[in-house]
Amino acid sequence: MDTSTPLKVAVPSTLNRINKHWSPKLVASLNSNTEVKLAKVLGDFVWHSHSDTDELFYVVEGGPLTIQFEEKDGGDITLMKGDMLVIPKGVRHCPKCDVETSVLLVEGMGTVNTEEVKER
Amino acid sequence: MDTSTPLKVAVPSTLNRINKHWSPKLVASLNSNTEVKLAKVLGDFVWHSHSDTDELFYVVEGGPLTIQFEEKDGGDITLMKGDMLVIPKGVRHCPKCDVETSVLLVEGMGTVNTEEVKER
Repeated sequence: MDTSTPLKVAVPSTLNRINKHWSPKLVASLNSNTEVKLAKVLGDFVWHSHSDTDELFYVVEGGPLTIQFEEKDGGDITLMKGDMLVIPKGVRHCPKCDVETSVLLVEGMGTVNTEEVKER
Repeated sequence: MDTSTPLKVAVPSTLNRINKHWSPKLVASLNSNTEVKLAKVLGDFVWHSHSDTDELFYVVEGGPLTIQFEEKDGGDITLMKGDMLVIPKGVRHCPKCDVETSVLLVEGMGTVNTEEVKER
């Protein structure tokens, strides 16, 4: 999706067109190595990790969104609207929220959101 | 700034501590190749380009923020709160706004915001 001309994305209207939870939509890429996605999330996701990329969550609307981590990684972190979290590669996590929440994701190119799922 | 443990950043309170315009504050990095910064902008910046990185602007608060481009690159693009823009590497641009605006930036590691300034 890298382009040679400026690319504008209207985040609110793009989110309005997303009607499936936990299904990130690619909206932009940078430098042939980084992707920007938008997603709506609700309920519990699955425990997983990404072996090859760090993952950034930014809560655009909604929240609280809790990212569950294993105790050795410090336990759960709860994100409110306006909070950002970087999850290092290889760190197992499981997002969950009780209110529909919109997130902006930044991660390495080609990331699958359920890479290395161990359980569902 | 890459870490092995999850890093949380509260964007609104981080922005509250920024009191200088056009001076991006590094708040997170990903994959040893990508940086996330927050900035407050007001007034006219300078015409410049980044030879080595694409640059993402996301308007968190405020706006309109106009990114001026040369005619060959399609002319000006105006961003409102919630709009995102990816500026490809090498494309000359000059941001300006009449209202203090807070932006989230994503760009390649080590980017200087006035790289290749041709005029002030």
